[in-house]
Amino acid sequence: MISKKMQKMVKGSSIIRAMFEEGNRLASIYGKENVYDFSLGNPNVPAPKQVKESIKMLVDTYEEPALHGYMNNAGFEDVRTKIANSINTKFSTNFNKSNIIMTVGAAGGINVIFKTLLDPNDEVITFAPFFGEYTNYADNFDAKLVIVPTQAPEFYPDLEKLASAITKKTKIVIINNPNNPTGVIYSEDMIIKITKVLEEKQKELDINIYIFSDEPYRELAYNGTVVPYITKYYKNTVVGYSYSKSLSLAGERIGYLVLPTELDCYKDIFDACSVANRILGFVNAPSLIQKVVGECLECQCDINYYKHNADLIYNGLTKIGFECVKPQGAFYLFVKSPIEDEKEFCQMAKKYNILLVPSSAFGCRGYIRLAYCVATKTIQNSLPNFEKLYQDIKNK
Amino acid sequence: MISKKMQKMVKGSSIIRAMFEEGNRLASIYGKENVYDFSLGNPNVPAPKQVKESIKMLVDTYEEPALHGYMNNAGFEDVRTKIANSINTKFSTNFNKSNIIMTVGAAGGINVIFKTLLDPNDEVITFAPFFGEYTNYADNFDAKLVIVPTQAPEFYPDLEKLASAITKKTKIVIINNPNNPTGVIYSEDMIIKITKVLEEKQKELDINIYIFSDEPYRELAYNGTVVPYITKYYKNTVVGYSYSKSLSLAGERIGYLVLPTELDCYKDIFDACSVANRILGFVNAPSLIQKVVGECLECQCDINYYKHNADLIYNGLTKIGFECVKPQGAFYLFVKSPIEDEKEFCQMAKKYNILLVPSSAFGCRGYIRLAYCVATKTIQNSLPNFEKLYQDIKNK
Repeated sequence: MISKKMQKMVKGSSIIRAMFEEGNRLASIYGKENVYDFSLGNPNVPAPKQVKESIKMLVDTYEEPALHGYMNNAGFEDVRTKIANSINTKFSTNFNKSNIIMTVGAAGGINVIFKTLLDPNDEVITFAPFFGEYTNYADNFDAKLVIVPTQAPEFYPDLEKLASAITKKTKIVIINNPNNPTGVIYSEDMIIKITKVLEEKQKELDINIYIFSDEPYRELAYNGTVVPYITKYYKNTVVGYSYSKSLSLAGERIGYLVLPTELDCYKDIFDACSVANRILGFVNAPSLIQKVVGECLECQCDINYYKHNADLIYNGLTKIGFECVKPQGAFYLFVKSPIEDEKEFCQMAKKYNILLVPSSAFGCRGYIRLAYCVATKTIQNSLPNFEKLYQDIKNK
Repeated sequence: MISKKMQKMVKGSSIIRAMFEEGNRLASIYGKENVYDFSLGNPNVPAPKQVKESIKMLVDTYEEPALHGYMNNAGFEDVRTKIANSINTKFSTNFNKSNIIMTVGAAGGINVIFKTLLDPNDEVITFAPFFGEYTNYADNFDAKLVIVPTQAPEFYPDLEKLASAITKKTKIVIINNPNNPTGVIYSEDMIIKITKVLEEKQKELDINIYIFSDEPYRELAYNGTVVPYITKYYKNTVVGYSYSKSLSLAGERIGYLVLPTELDCYKDIFDACSVANRILGFVNAPSLIQKVVGECLECQCDINYYKHNADLIYNGLTKIGFECVKPQGAFYLFVKSPIEDEKEFCQMAKKYNILLVPSSAFGCRGYIRLAYCVATKTIQNSLPNFEKLYQDIKNK
């Protein structure tokens, strides 16, 4: 009885569910501490203490029922003003509340802007490897996800292939920086090169191409690596942000869209995003947590914890002999599969109680993604098993 | 540049926005206390004190980062178990956690079940007058909303017209009880009559028809009026619930779907709803508030406040001469427009600083909806203006 689209989706989702169930099965046999589950991007660093403090302060002092009631579909105006000011201070931009729409996480935001911009058969370009949900989000609006490869070992987009992938139907190009699953950060130089291609193609084809800058990992940038704020390089840029990782609030579903006034059709887009937030069923971002992030704009969770994990797993695996992409940001390590079929490699890893995601889930082959947002001890304890796994493969 | 669908949606939404702006304009001229805004269903009764207490208890005692992290897309298992048990106690049902999916409010829930069940051109039946957003929710999935009229003065569905509206394409029939905008509650007898029509048509056409029971106003039932639990009368019933009104948490976006094991294709539907929750961008219902409602299942906000307002406005307006539907539940009064064109009546009311919604926004003509979830003083102070408005019309 379920819809044809959902039949496909459920089938596609069964791999991740199967892995989740496998993790539970292994944990029940070997004990949770002896299963090395690197499959999920669920932050394991606690939220900063200011989150707890501001929740308590707000419920004690804020007027009821407004704290838990409806507000404008775009979100509380004071929170949007604070966020705009905070972005302006950090990135020398010039936003105000009319440039911010509060969303149900980054996933809510991307669906809102897709609903706003995409007609059926429109094309959305993404660079592979990419966050697999983009396929489903585009499909929600009957749009087509067009995949442009990147070039190892930097995993930077192939600009010629980008140029030739753009058609009259191209509406959105997604840039996910820092990148899931590679952990790579696109430099300013790379961003400028991408925007140049888009500027030229906009003129050549007489179309508007919007960049959707998907930035849930913005604060997770190591060694002072700069993550360029793309609105400064390309006027048709919409930013999607989430507090899931920076404040460890993934389950709370809180983020925002930045819609610069310079956007072609800014006013229409802003109004349509507000309406889309409503009619997609989000209505508005959760109210109390909107106010909480408004109180915690200068806070972040302990990024050094992830950096420490990144070094530990990167050094540990490269020492064993694995070929890894050096993590610059996010909390993922992208590892070359030591055998051609990365799915088979993931199966072999399971024998050592190690759970990994094959890169085919991210639109490319030959790699695995390892999410190191886990207990440091899990990484330490997993290394002997990675060693055995590696020897196992070499001895084959 | 915005999508064709959104161009229409934004145009359609401008009426409500215009009213909102008109309210602000009038407030700035006459003072907020002298504007009688009955246009919005935003609860004005504070959340019960247990909400505040359990928020503080949870942030003080619950393990981090799990309190704010991802969980199963269907929601925390302990919360789903508690909700199932609570429903079982109240309605003698037999649910467990596998029958509950936590959703981003009722609006999130309805989009999840629509995404799960509806193929393009499928038909969803609703009884007019109806909550206007149903049109947009059906359109999100390219389905068609089929409108079946009700019969004044009870505003009960016309069963013959229901039977003849059902086709091979009918997939869902929405029952919204207590009803927005009429304030009517369908009796057990009425529910049985509706389900009989559906049973017969299912057989006759060899199709599955699901009832979607939209119940955000379940607890707002006055004078002990019973709101039947429809899963007990019809096996293909999906319930959509929200804590927006019962706990005054409208902005927090928290509710759930009930998917009985007896549903045709239960397993497929449950799995697809979990996946739909994810790919529509909700991912999961907000985490802290899930836990909060789990602590507050036996609480509700002060329903007597709404009942008091209901009596005050109903008695006040009928005394003046208006013809009103006696409110049995929800917090809306449905009033016959004293002139044929209810839109013109709403315009006339504005001259007396009274803001009302014309019934055309709910798919029928000749009435207005008045939301009495406002300060009691607002109702008291508005009555002299309603009197003047009525005289104004009679003297025309």
